[in-house]
Amino acid sequence: MGSAIITLTTDFGTDSPYVAQMKGVILAINPQATIVDVTHSVAPQDVAGAAHILADVCRRFPAGAIHVVVVDPGVGTDRAIVYAEVGAGRYLAPDNGVLTLVAERDAPSRLIRLAERRYWLEPVSSTFHGRDIFSPVAAHVSLGVGPESLGPNHERLVQLELPRPRVLADRIVGRIVQIDAFGNLITNIESTMLPAGRSRADLRVECQGRTEVGMVSVYAERHAGSLVALIGSGGRLEIAVVDGNASRTLSASVGEEVIVRW
Amino acid sequence: MGSAIITLTTDFGTDSPYVAQMKGVILAINPQATIVDVTHSVAPQDVAGAAHILADVCRRFPAGAIHVVVVDPGVGTDRAIVYAEVGAGRYLAPDNGVLTLVAERDAPSRLIRLAERRYWLEPVSSTFHGRDIFSPVAAHVSLGVGPESLGPNHERLVQLELPRPRVLADRIVGRIVQIDAFGNLITNIESTMLPAGRSRADLRVECQGRTEVGMVSVYAERHAGSLVALIGSGGRLEIAVVDGNASRTLSASVGEEVIVRW
Amino acid sequence: MGSAIITLTTDFGTDSPYVAQMKGVILAINPQATIVDVTHSVAPQDVAGAAHILADVCRRFPAGAIHVVVVDPGVGTDRAIVYAEVGAGRYLAPDNGVLTLVAERDAPSRLIRLAERRYWLEPVSSTFHGRDIFSPVAAHVSLGVGPESLGPNHERLVQLELPRPRVLADRIVGRIVQIDAFGNLITNIESTMLPAGRSRADLRVECQGRTEVGMVSVYAERHAGSLVALIGSGGRLEIAVVDGNASRTLSASVGEEVIVRW
Repeated sequence: MGSAIITLTTDFGTDSPYVAQMKGVILAINPQATIVDVTHSVAPQDVAGAAHILADVCRRFPAGAIHVVVVDPGVGTDRAIVYAEVGAGRYLAPDNGVLTLVAERDAPSRLIRLAERRYWLEPVSSTFHGRDIFSPVAAHVSLGVGPESLGPNHERLVQLELPRPRVLADRIVGRIVQIDAFGNLITNIESTMLPAGRSRADLRVECQGRTEVGMVSVYAERHAGSLVALIGSGGRLEIAVVDGNASRTLSASVGEEVIVRW
Repeated sequence: MGSAIITLTTDFGTDSPYVAQMKGVILAINPQATIVDVTHSVAPQDVAGAAHILADVCRRFPAGAIHVVVVDPGVGTDRAIVYAEVGAGRYLAPDNGVLTLVAERDAPSRLIRLAERRYWLEPVSSTFHGRDIFSPVAAHVSLGVGPESLGPNHERLVQLELPRPRVLADRIVGRIVQIDAFGNLITNIESTMLPAGRSRADLRVECQGRTEVGMVSVYAERHAGSLVALIGSGGRLEIAVVDGNASRTLSASVGEEVIVRW
Repeated sequence: MGSAIITLTTDFGTDSPYVAQMKGVILAINPQATIVDVTHSVAPQDVAGAAHILADVCRRFPAGAIHVVVVDPGVGTDRAIVYAEVGAGRYLAPDNGVLTLVAERDAPSRLIRLAERRYWLEPVSSTFHGRDIFSPVAAHVSLGVGPESLGPNHERLVQLELPRPRVLADRIVGRIVQIDAFGNLITNIESTMLPAGRSRADLRVECQGRTEVGMVSVYAERHAGSLVALIGSGGRLEIAVVDGNASRTLSASVGEEVIVRW
């Protein structure tokens, strides 16, 4: 399971020098590490938002990649920091629910609570465990340090209460769970939840009481400015404005209801 | 022409997890690839803007670098995706004109239309070819897959209609084609178009009817706040405010006229 | 002192294609270089801000890393560009004071003024020395070119006049010197300046005439919304709002006074 790929997902803000400090710590331990930024634009302390991004991104990476997630409102308290092996990926994250969606796809095959301070920086600050614990541990793991030496087994991960779509006889009631940089409204309605044997023309999508959302396969099926629904690249229903920004057009927010009827 | 350098130019937005998905796909195929972000801040679907950025940046990279451009309003339609060899560079881009300026400098020596699905992810989404086609093809090419195996020859590239300066006996009439992060207004007037044998003091630059734009060699020739024109780092005339932001000062936009008289 | 790690700190703006041009130049000379962005969000020409960021970040990197700083209001004038060895790090920067804090921690062991044009791009533009001088020199140094061949010795670095805290018998009067992406107000008061032998409960922190700033060890000691002071990850006193943004809450700016009394 060796790999020197380390990804970083944080809420430190785009272009943050805090991220650069983490990279310096990693490279000081493993100068050969390949470090990839997933994003640093998670909204401050938005654990659920990070959970969605992580679940979409990590499965694209090669087996053994080490995914470091520092969205950590509990820094400095006694919340655990965990090392987790889930599917082909390895994760270092606060045990605050940010791995909920990753761990739904595959059950964790190994869970360790970080405790072995010899893999941490000395001293450990009370406000920046990303630099002082996560980064050096990730670098040591990338060099082959065995998970069993990082700390004791950890029993189970904290689970986030994420909104789940209700799948009914004639409709699915879901919610917007992410808004991307194009303003597309990404829901929690998976393509696999849609009724089998029905064409897309049979489906009616409602958002904010608007029923004129056309279901399409690609944006280019409709004219610029049209409000459309389609299955996005993550396999979930999303609402978009062709060549526009649905988030701005609808003033939509994460949490709003989206209904598919047939 | 081997090189494992892959550059990425997209309109996905700064710090986008979609970019991270592309990087994961590339590294899963070629963990040794060196991936460089050119920018992800191209305005949504601004093919002309991306064309200018690409032409400036790609010539700085080593021979054989693979430049991936995903500014692709036609995603999911039957627009071609092309592999192009132009000068010392290799390009993967939608055939929508984004290579216009690159291909003006040197004629393409090879053009392939991507068709061979064995180098694509399976399944291919209808909305994210950057991840499902461009990225895996770039990674395979970086590993040495021959262009001829990617698909059939492609006859010619779509050309963008870009505004061209008019070079007259006593003046050049050009336009602002880019605005950089400093607010400098970059025109399409190349330094080589300026009249030979005339000193800069003989040239008068007008922008928005303002004629007090002084022509200088370096910003520091004038006081803070001065409106100046100079030959920028890309070899084109640009308008700047010393220690300030010309775009904000003039409320200038891409497309506005700039005139050099002598 | 070999290392192929090159870090970049500029005011070019997030996601700037100018940065990509620098990376292309570096990789064309040393394709094995590991390039790390520190930040490109330094406020335009904010030499003091860059000095603070650099001092915090560079000490996290491995020995021999080459730190390139292009915050350079004097570009095109005769200000020197220097190569400096300070502690275990190597620096390329305009001699405008941006190395002031780095060089306070350790005296420079070597200072060279860049003069040897054979390590520069040809031609050198008058506006973009980051690309035409700093980048190629960094790449050549990363390949082992000896500093003595870059130019003559340089006598001493320009020093910035940075505000210094006044440490008095019953108080320390400092200032806000940085504001991070969380809105935390980072002061120039070092933890080592606080009176020995006094507990944090004995210290009273004032900011903008507000005296209710509680001194804590970790954010989570107080309820969301509380205004707190703590020793941040850089070892300096900072003012924060728990789960909030102190900069917005207080409309605070760099330069404002912060007082610790006991």
